[in-house]
Amino acid sequence: MGGPVSRPVEGTRQRLLTAAVESFHRHSVAGTSLQMISDDLGLTKSAIYHHFRTRDELLEAILEPVMADLARLVAAAESVRGARARADAMLTGFAALAVTRRTLIPVLTGDPGVADFLRGRPDWSALVQRQLALLADVEPGLGGQVKAAVVMAGISAAVGVDYPEAGDDLARVQDELVTAGRRTLGLRAPRET
Amino acid sequence: MGGPVSRPVEGTRQRLLTAAVESFHRHSVAGTSLQMISDDLGLTKSAIYHHFRTRDELLEAILEPVMADLARLVAAAESVRGARARADAMLTGFAALAVTRRTLIPVLTGDPGVADFLRGRPDWSALVQRQLALLADVEPGLGGQVKAAVVMAGISAAVGVDYPEAGDDLARVQDELVTAGRRTLGLRAPRET
Repeated sequence: MGGPVSRPVEGTRQRLLTAAVESFHRHSVAGTSLQMISDDLGLTKSAIYHHFRTRDELLEAILEPVMADLARLVAAAESVRGARARADAMLTGFAALAVTRRTLIPVLTGDPGVADFLRGRPDWSALVQRQLALLADVEPGLGGQVKAAVVMAGISAAVGVDYPEAGDDLARVQDELVTAGRRTLGLRAPRET
Repeated sequence: MGGPVSRPVEGTRQRLLTAAVESFHRHSVAGTSLQMISDDLGLTKSAIYHHFRTRDELLEAILEPVMADLARLVAAAESVRGARARADAMLTGFAALAVTRRTLIPVLTGDPGVADFLRGRPDWSALVQRQLALLADVEPGLGGQVKAAVVMAGISAAVGVDYPEAGDDLARVQDELVTAGRRTLGLRAPRET
């Protein structure tokens, strides 16, 4: 658990996951085949089959840790008192997650292949709905729902854009994503503590 | 020019375009083949080849009218005086376009297959950059760029969401998209005239 990865089996698995995220990002999920990924890594098809039998298994393995992070964020935000504070906790947590996983997050929300996959995982779909509800509850009705969708999809896509002005300073991008989200939802920045 | 479409050739072409948008929406661009579309419509492969030789030709034919609309919107917005009024013109125009083409627009901005295609069409990429610049110019620097990206991607994705509360009243959705965009960009609603 933790520590440097030394088993070759683990090494290959991780390389497969990284190559898959990269390929999903570039060619979309539907445009990616196990064959392409094994070619990219110079692996045989049986080497990849040892880890993943289908593209869906690979997608699931990629989504698993993100969904675990998201589940923690959603649960933490739901435990906060007050609808506005709950939304702010969800927003700031999601912006941090998006920046940390900025190759994957734009795929996750923009790619119809992922949406398709999520329909087969009601537990994960429910999690995304809870995330949306936390953002939407600031303003009851259609206005809140539309703003929540704009913020969630907007952050997910905007984190994948290259901002020459920010260079490698992703903390600045994260701050700006939070600022944009707060504005959209009508949240004030909390006072410094 | 205008008027009811009666030539059978036009009819098939239009049915192909409609079926393709639907398939791009459901299976993404990379997950759609000419074969799938001809199967959906009960056409032979040679019938589809009469109109489109490749998926890219089909995608281009789908994007063409949207890009023509967008070009008009961008040019109109650029001719307005004042950065805030320009951004507002771009925002309101884009929200209207997104609602009118709500099956296509989420694909257009979320699908890596479209991004890939646009890289081969520098004229269309430049158009999207002008659209972003109109929104970003309200606030110089990184903050404006991030907010523009959030608004554009956010509206594009949020327009594709089903809002049971809105039912068929897409005008309400459009109003809420504009309200969300104005908030994000820090624009006030113009006074009624």
